[in-house]
Amino acid sequence: MREVYLDNGSATPIDIRVHEAMSPYCRELFGNPVSFGDRGNRASDAIEEARSQVGSLINAPENEIIFTSCGTESNNMAIKGLAVARRGRGRHVIISSIEHFSVLHPARTLEKFGFEVTYLPVDEYGLVDPDQVKKNIRQDTTLVSVMHANMEVGTIQPLKEIAEVVKESGAVFHTDAIATTGVIPVDVQELGIDCLSLAANEFYGPTGAAALWLRRGIQIIPMLEGGVQESDKRSGTHNVPGVVGLGKAAELAQQDMQSRNEQITKLRDRLREGLQEKIKHINLTGHPTQRLPGNVSLCVNFIEGEAMLAFLENQGIAAASGSACTSKMLKSSHVLNAMGYPPEIAQGSLLFTIGAENTDEDINYVIESFPPIVERLRQISPLYDKYLKSQKGGK
Amino acid sequence: MREVYLDNGSATPIDIRVHEAMSPYCRELFGNPVSFGDRGNRASDAIEEARSQVGSLINAPENEIIFTSCGTESNNMAIKGLAVARRGRGRHVIISSIEHFSVLHPARTLEKFGFEVTYLPVDEYGLVDPDQVKKNIRQDTTLVSVMHANMEVGTIQPLKEIAEVVKESGAVFHTDAIATTGVIPVDVQELGIDCLSLAANEFYGPTGAAALWLRRGIQIIPMLEGGVQESDKRSGTHNVPGVVGLGKAAELAQQDMQSRNEQITKLRDRLREGLQEKIKHINLTGHPTQRLPGNVSLCVNFIEGEAMLAFLENQGIAAASGSACTSKMLKSSHVLNAMGYPPEIAQGSLLFTIGAENTDEDINYVIESFPPIVERLRQISPLYDKYLKSQKGGK
Repeated sequence: MREVYLDNGSATPIDIRVHEAMSPYCRELFGNPVSFGDRGNRASDAIEEARSQVGSLINAPENEIIFTSCGTESNNMAIKGLAVARRGRGRHVIISSIEHFSVLHPARTLEKFGFEVTYLPVDEYGLVDPDQVKKNIRQDTTLVSVMHANMEVGTIQPLKEIAEVVKESGAVFHTDAIATTGVIPVDVQELGIDCLSLAANEFYGPTGAAALWLRRGIQIIPMLEGGVQESDKRSGTHNVPGVVGLGKAAELAQQDMQSRNEQITKLRDRLREGLQEKIKHINLTGHPTQRLPGNVSLCVNFIEGEAMLAFLENQGIAAASGSACTSKMLKSSHVLNAMGYPPEIAQGSLLFTIGAENTDEDINYVIESFPPIVERLRQISPLYDKYLKSQKGGK
Repeated sequence: MREVYLDNGSATPIDIRVHEAMSPYCRELFGNPVSFGDRGNRASDAIEEARSQVGSLINAPENEIIFTSCGTESNNMAIKGLAVARRGRGRHVIISSIEHFSVLHPARTLEKFGFEVTYLPVDEYGLVDPDQVKKNIRQDTTLVSVMHANMEVGTIQPLKEIAEVVKESGAVFHTDAIATTGVIPVDVQELGIDCLSLAANEFYGPTGAAALWLRRGIQIIPMLEGGVQESDKRSGTHNVPGVVGLGKAAELAQQDMQSRNEQITKLRDRLREGLQEKIKHINLTGHPTQRLPGNVSLCVNFIEGEAMLAFLENQGIAAASGSACTSKMLKSSHVLNAMGYPPEIAQGSLLFTIGAENTDEDINYVIESFPPIVERLRQISPLYDKYLKSQKGGK
């Protein structure tokens, strides 16, 4: 059976060149970067090279890059670390209502510890309105966090416009750019932001390697305290092969982004159009044009995401429903909910994320295989049955 | 030139069998354990196997193992997470004065947020007296944390006796067992403790993979919030190869511990005796018998650790001075300080940590090479010169 991996939003395969860069540090060149001598220095040099590669990818000075263990750590560190460090100025925080749980949950924790959080609404495409940000900013607002793009529906936010509004207010602006860094151009200076989360496993790097960029001079409370690593902002023995992999993936992303995206965007558009043409009663979710290159998100009416995933899996096709972190939970998505989709439509959400290793044949295979699955599932769907009867009744 | 790695306390080389177990998950079997379908399930199964391997190593139920990214994360999570979760009961915390910075610094942060911390003294060998623990426990003491063994001086604490005292009080007992887990037998039930930190890179596993064991029913505030991983206690996409490596390293440690330690202890004793015999004016630090198998810690009088490290490096020998995390900082050690060593002796601290890959020839080489280095450095040492003069003057 053909195997088609269209779940690149959950984890991308590691680029073979990234793997090759990491390999020596797994065994022969193992070492603790804080150790004295050659072995420590080699590891330390490798970390610093990765820092410069990551800095270059987002146009930030390398000494403003803080390595972390995952995107979730970067987001937690940003939300809790910035809000608590700046609590003298005020205790009001603004985030969008479609943030990833690794931003949402820390915000809720802040509420438990006496902070006030405003959750910004989004429109039907998942867009945050910069005017809404402006309206909600107060004198005691210290932190605003709006994601760069939402993985679940693909929508890219007008980040620069939002950042301008935040800057005027004196609050600090963080963005969860885990879905975009290494995927589309991200220039922190041009965007005018203060702090950004990124993770290697979204751009053909390893899991276990991520970073937080924090503009110099902005105070933050570290979460992981102890040793001397990362200028005291994030202690803990470095995952050296992981950091090396993140660096190499950043270098390759910078180099290959354009060619990767030309191919991926073509495949995405063909899949979107193919599915829309062949399947009745579907909603393509997210913004039609301001969207991630590889993201095809949709809601298929009258059937459940879970059932579609199982049937797709049966045909060798890996996809997702809801966010990567909740595919197995299969709760109705808070993102689609905020965009105004009622639960009976949101439950049929499906997400194909196309990556650099996908081909034309992969997409053809999905366009051929998926519509019959939908057909089959609808034949046994009480909701669809009800719909058909209501149509007849209406005649 | 011969290369002798005696810095296993900073990072052990990865066992080739661990590396082989990890490799498939780096590329072919990449996947996010929370994803739907075969790829996710395979990754998830691998994580659960590692959980059972780690549980087995310390005799804990596997569902009480929480995977983290490093020992520092485990310690931070334990100290801050337990103290804050239990703040309703009281705000007094006890730790020993020779804890690693990843316990000490979180304790200091607790002080900033209204907690009171008692720092227990140690004797000349670095031992904590269980009676001291008893004396300092109060009604509002919620957490006691004493490390299992100190990496810098090798001393193993009477953990079971301390745990008994803590248990009577109703406080929770955490131990930083990063230096001991996978190295000497650690049985959490027999020790009678509640929470334990461990890290793979201390027993031939990878960096970037560690765990916290927390006895069921004990409340903790998670640091990394977000997804659904680790029963909501530690969110974030799993570093799958790292976790697999941790599991395999745990399995091998259980299997090979005895034979490894027979060899390592012999080498340790030979090195200790050889150096003591050949070098005048040295102090072997830590407890003479209750000590880590591979640990040879000493203070060489009249010269500085830094200079010795440089000369040893020049002869191809990797060692450490102070703790792994401060070798490059070369501050006087808070551990030796607490043990009563004055700064002028503590500055000459040196640490050889022997691992499973070291041989008789390695030890012979150090016993041959090191004394001439000490001789040479003493010839240019003003402190030694002063000492000699004082001796002459005294005659």
